[in-house]
Amino acid sequence: MSDASTAQAFITPDALLEHWQGHRRLTRRVIEAFPDDQLFSFSVGGMRTFGELALELTAMAEPMVRGVATGEWSTSFSRDAQPKADILRRWDESTDAINQLWSQIPAEKFGEHMTAFGQYPGIAHDLILYVIDNEIHHRGQGYVYLRALGIEPPPFYERQ
Amino acid sequence: MSDASTAQAFITPDALLEHWQGHRRLTRRVIEAFPDDQLFSFSVGGMRTFGELALELTAMAEPMVRGVATGEWSTSFSRDAQPKADILRRWDESTDAINQLWSQIPAEKFGEHMTAFGQYPGIAHDLILYVIDNEIHHRGQGYVYLRALGIEPPPFYERQ
Repeated sequence: MSDASTAQAFITPDALLEHWQGHRRLTRRVIEAFPDDQLFSFSVGGMRTFGELALELTAMAEPMVRGVATGEWSTSFSRDAQPKADILRRWDESTDAINQLWSQIPAEKFGEHMTAFGQYPGIAHDLILYVIDNEIHHRGQGYVYLRALGIEPPPFYERQ
Repeated sequence: MSDASTAQAFITPDALLEHWQGHRRLTRRVIEAFPDDQLFSFSVGGMRTFGELALELTAMAEPMVRGVATGEWSTSFSRDAQPKADILRRWDESTDAINQLWSQIPAEKFGEHMTAFGQYPGIAHDLILYVIDNEIHHRGQGYVYLRALGIEPPPFYERQ
């Protein structure tokens, strides 16, 4: 009853994955809402463009889950402008890869300490939550960019 | 092994609370970073001010945890301007109340279906994550407001 895999659960791995994939569906709609010519040019207050932020999210999500699942840590550092369609295609590939890799992670592993990408130490659940939280954080910034562009963002509560 | 309280855990209730309180420490610093005279006046793209957003966060956090813990659902709908010091004091009171109420929630309750505030049905863990995610979402917008005001926001990764 007290080992890590059967510790008291706030949420199970399956439910957390579904929660995350709901966020990813919303983030995909936010990427989609940007005009292609604003994705890597528009920003507010000297911040990064939403295109650069979307590439950061892509460089964190699947690579983090792969690292937790396999112990192999690698990611991409390119933030060069890409057509929106390419970013969305990559997003969808990551969605499938995350589902597939997640199913290979035994529950007790989410409570294990590890060092992500050779430089970020933490418990696996915190490392994964960091990636999700970073997605929500930057997507919220994307909402402001869209509003500043006169575009209504997709509803925050809609996750299907 | 298979009942809700000992289901496989992505994260335990204690660890999730600590994760959330880390976010709350960061959000408090973002509120603090706003000049008092901009908190209820400045915004970007016709959005709500960060003061209004901070009051929304306050009206969701402790009331949600109280509802899950006790079944009593009530909240405040006022978003009238308040001095920053009053918002921060209220924030700190909520932090303590959340810790106290959280300790009264048996783990299995996080997997139960309920209807928050008489109108939001969901599993308790999803209802609570919604509150946390909404905090991260609006705080990310606060980062843009601060940058647009020429103020450097606190680092996202610092949660102590």
